[in-house]
Amino acid sequence: MVAKHVNTLRTEDKIFAVSREAGSAVLQFGKEKVVNATVGAILDEDEKLAVLPTVIKTLRNLPDTEFAAYAPIPGTPDYLESAIQSTFRENRPEGYIKASATPGGSGAIRHTIWNYSDIGDTILTSDWFWGPYKTLAEENLRKLSAFSLFDDEKSFNLHSFEVKVSELLERQDSLVILLNSPAQNPTGYTLSDDEWGQVIETVKGAASDGSKRITLLCDIAYIDYAGRASDTRSFMSHFSGLPSNLLVIVAFSTSKSLTMYGLRTGAAVCVSSNKDVVQEFSDVFETSNRGTWSNGTRCGMKLLSEIMNNKELLLRVDEEREEFRQLLEKRAEIFIEEARGSHLDICPYKSGFFITIPAIQPEESCKLLKKENIFAVPISRGIRFAICSVPLYKMKGIAEKIKGAIS
Amino acid sequence: MVAKHVNTLRTEDKIFAVSREAGSAVLQFGKEKVVNATVGAILDEDEKLAVLPTVIKTLRNLPDTEFAAYAPIPGTPDYLESAIQSTFRENRPEGYIKASATPGGSGAIRHTIWNYSDIGDTILTSDWFWGPYKTLAEENLRKLSAFSLFDDEKSFNLHSFEVKVSELLERQDSLVILLNSPAQNPTGYTLSDDEWGQVIETVKGAASDGSKRITLLCDIAYIDYAGRASDTRSFMSHFSGLPSNLLVIVAFSTSKSLTMYGLRTGAAVCVSSNKDVVQEFSDVFETSNRGTWSNGTRCGMKLLSEIMNNKELLLRVDEEREEFRQLLEKRAEIFIEEARGSHLDICPYKSGFFITIPAIQPEESCKLLKKENIFAVPISRGIRFAICSVPLYKMKGIAEKIKGAIS
Repeated sequence: MVAKHVNTLRTEDKIFAVSREAGSAVLQFGKEKVVNATVGAILDEDEKLAVLPTVIKTLRNLPDTEFAAYAPIPGTPDYLESAIQSTFRENRPEGYIKASATPGGSGAIRHTIWNYSDIGDTILTSDWFWGPYKTLAEENLRKLSAFSLFDDEKSFNLHSFEVKVSELLERQDSLVILLNSPAQNPTGYTLSDDEWGQVIETVKGAASDGSKRITLLCDIAYIDYAGRASDTRSFMSHFSGLPSNLLVIVAFSTSKSLTMYGLRTGAAVCVSSNKDVVQEFSDVFETSNRGTWSNGTRCGMKLLSEIMNNKELLLRVDEEREEFRQLLEKRAEIFIEEARGSHLDICPYKSGFFITIPAIQPEESCKLLKKENIFAVPISRGIRFAICSVPLYKMKGIAEKIKGAIS
Repeated sequence: MVAKHVNTLRTEDKIFAVSREAGSAVLQFGKEKVVNATVGAILDEDEKLAVLPTVIKTLRNLPDTEFAAYAPIPGTPDYLESAIQSTFRENRPEGYIKASATPGGSGAIRHTIWNYSDIGDTILTSDWFWGPYKTLAEENLRKLSAFSLFDDEKSFNLHSFEVKVSELLERQDSLVILLNSPAQNPTGYTLSDDEWGQVIETVKGAASDGSKRITLLCDIAYIDYAGRASDTRSFMSHFSGLPSNLLVIVAFSTSKSLTMYGLRTGAAVCVSSNKDVVQEFSDVFETSNRGTWSNGTRCGMKLLSEIMNNKELLLRVDEEREEFRQLLEKRAEIFIEEARGSHLDICPYKSGFFITIPAIQPEESCKLLKKENIFAVPISRGIRFAICSVPLYKMKGIAEKIKGAIS
């Protein structure tokens, strides 16, 4: 029945499938015996969903109308200002800045692809990437192509990035570049400020051809688990003073930052040296909102603005989140140290929810791991292990078992 | 900066603009002196947003994780079953039925247009229609065309519908037909069961050409304000036993039914005599969800399933809503009776949030009304008066003033 352009091949949700198997194993063998490293959300040491106490309390204290009423199509004005504040904190770049509410970061990615690339264009991302980027590109009739994220020193592969950018701009006039940093999903990699500087120089160079339109789309979903707010955002100073045919759009989301994944509250935050470009962004995103999902979850918007407009509340939320960030750090330390001991090669993890282990046959290796009651997600060139969902006491011995499963 | 296919003309949100003017008038003249008939949500007799008490109580009683956790991409299984139950109540048509969660009814309309019409196709709706239908069509690179909703007797204009359906199918292979009934926005019109029967016969006839794919998209946003559940859904029996190239998709939404506009919780509910067609629907909507907004608001889903799975709770919600339905009825009665007295011609209102008055110069007439502190929304061929937001005591005398303003 569907139209010609629709792909009817169901892309099975692997994460969900493996997660369900983990659930069955828990029933059969008991929770203590099963390592479920599939969940993309922080579970505490009892393997319960971690919810920041001040956040849920603030949400529950909102008046009824904040749950019931519609938000304006572009988002409530308070929320938009709070999303900008929360995105940049003390590192607001110079230039014109506007935001538009979207359901999570995904909505911001959809609208950016839709409005800033031509149909049939190829979107550029790194070869280690969050699978749904491909779905977002293809649903919107674009293709996805990748540069190599890492060079031989496991640093950002600037050369591969440069080659891909110029290659794509030879055959298309617009280019949307989708980078997920800091604390990338799935590798946990974070571009250094220097690497960001090189990225910006590269795209600036490409934008010297005034007939090209380049959009740098930064997915910062995990930023608040990458360190202290001022450190994690210092790279954003590179967004100042860019040419007007080089647009920066930041995909902002409260999903992880506030542990409110299910409220679908995100935003696209646009930075440009050109006032008209930012106004155009605001206009077309408003139209796209109306033409796609109408408007966003009001209580999620109010929640963020309550927190951002109350220093004490924000401090408390930051402190509560910091505890979980440190927990992730400890879980990662165990894994990384043991990986070193077992000579297990892993992607260069800096911070975040996931560690990824390159593997030749990810599906096979994950099957072997299941026999040891370790459930992780096979991705195209490796295994994604969600340290966010595995308590400390279960982290021990994992690296060696993975080493065994991929050898 | 934007791509070639993007329309950068900002479609100013008229409703918001007029509503803001009403707000200023309230500050200047006092609430009692101002009639704000712009709001698309029920306000009680104190002009406060009406929130069903049992609904908000049930929402607040949900555990923290129901607010925090992600919902699965297609929606939680409980929610999908509840959305189907809530759509049909006792009038579930025969055939295969599946649902997919979407942000409000808007999301269901977006996905249906995207997946069941070809790019460049024309979507068919009635000439009185909710403005954003056009945005939804155009954002997704389709056009919108209209048949005349009313004939000279102010009944459903079957002839115009038939002509338009066959005209469009002469030049395109797929046709999405978007009907908003019962209690249409903006006219308050409801197709009778007989009229639905004629609609179905017409599209069945068109579907006798097996090379055509026809999707009947029913927007039932206001259904729970159109009468008792069993009466308002009796037309759905017509959805049984349709040919497999004639698909029915119902755009379901909790926004109005639960007075939870801001939770963005809706669904597309698909009915077909063909199992594969329904499975395909489920698959492509899951992919479209992932490729657009990822997933929906979990607490809104849980809220509906809590209510639908508890007879006592459902009864209470139905009773609370019924009070507001009767309030709308009373407000409408005043208007309609006075309109008759003033010889004011109005669209054939049956039920719902809005009454529409045909006007030659809607903008001019609304300007005149503003001078009398009456704020209503000019639409393309008339004035939309939101009885849902105007208390009884302010309804008196309105019809005559509108008569004056359009003459």
